[in-house]
Amino acid sequence: MSFLENLQWRYATKKYDPTKKVAEKDVQKIVEAARLAPTSSGLQPFKVIVISNQELKDKIVPIAWGQNIVAEASHVLVFAAWDSYSEERIDNVFYYTAEERGLPRDRFKDYTDRLKQIYIPQGAEENFKHTARQAYIGFGFAIAQAAELKVDSTPMEGFSNAELDELLGLKEQGLRSVLLLPLGYRDKENDWLVNMKKVRVPQEEFVLEYK
Amino acid sequence: MSFLENLQWRYATKKYDPTKKVAEKDVQKIVEAARLAPTSSGLQPFKVIVISNQELKDKIVPIAWGQNIVAEASHVLVFAAWDSYSEERIDNVFYYTAEERGLPRDRFKDYTDRLKQIYIPQGAEENFKHTARQAYIGFGFAIAQAAELKVDSTPMEGFSNAELDELLGLKEQGLRSVLLLPLGYRDKENDWLVNMKKVRVPQEEFVLEYK
Repeated sequence: MSFLENLQWRYATKKYDPTKKVAEKDVQKIVEAARLAPTSSGLQPFKVIVISNQELKDKIVPIAWGQNIVAEASHVLVFAAWDSYSEERIDNVFYYTAEERGLPRDRFKDYTDRLKQIYIPQGAEENFKHTARQAYIGFGFAIAQAAELKVDSTPMEGFSNAELDELLGLKEQGLRSVLLLPLGYRDKENDWLVNMKKVRVPQEEFVLEYK
Repeated sequence: MSFLENLQWRYATKKYDPTKKVAEKDVQKIVEAARLAPTSSGLQPFKVIVISNQELKDKIVPIAWGQNIVAEASHVLVFAAWDSYSEERIDNVFYYTAEERGLPRDRFKDYTDRLKQIYIPQGAEENFKHTARQAYIGFGFAIAQAAELKVDSTPMEGFSNAELDELLGLKEQGLRSVLLLPLGYRDKENDWLVNMKKVRVPQEEFVLEYK
């Protein structure tokens, strides 16, 4: 199947078959797609938390406004972005890049100095606006990778971020939850959305061309 | 090539061969991938502007801090998000969805009422924070679709949003520019990044598991 066919196949699954589990090698590919996503200046300011523990999934249900999807899915991915940029975080990424490319450790100093000039003065809330956006690219890649593997997924923003941060101890790790992605296999008989037509804004409204 | 292989193949192209143009059918597929992206409540609060006009691309170079990539690329996609949510915009999406699914026009009234209760009181700036994030999912899909077609692309946030909005008259359309995606074919001889190792944060740092 082509990429577009996979995107046509997928839909925001509303009901999972809780008896079907996603193979670990497939979960790894889905996370790997997120890891390979491009991010601003290559800073990769987010992490993915993979939850298959049933007790923990159950605890997320009330945090996700009672949506049982989270408990019934095989795995739940949490996309959590850096709560801010810091000099140390910026340096670490570029020290590692230099090391991996066999370059001197301070090879990117001019570049990281410029990044620090932009990010450090603007404060945590403005920085988080930016780190959170980057997580959405990886989120998209994870959704697309799942579709290629014929693994169903449900993109979710609807949950209490603060409560999930508390449950997972994210604050202590300098992270804030942004997105959830339950993974699993659709329960065809009981998912009201599965047979509904996929609707998107018509192409002529979505695209504007300057030739 | 698998999805992951395509993601390994792609890189943020720094130098395009300006003589090579991307076929229109390929550009259409890349835009189509963005159109098929999931968005919060299916509102699709962004558009894609496709620019192949050379004069217009040239005008964007100074707006994009002098980056010639924009002029040398075959096409430049501009991802522009709604400047806010409005009752009319929310209604229009769900009237259209109802029509496409053969449902009564007001079938989604309870749902759209709830969306309006969330979005209308919180104001334009907070809404734009949300619409802009959605554009990143489509942006990711466009990048991945380009990679499948072996079309190079350069994810770009670095430009003056206000000046680009002015140039394209986006404000009058209720839109604000968020992202640029030049498309084309790499100039292998002159792109300093093409042979550099792709570096990503190691898996053990990127992923946290709760089994």
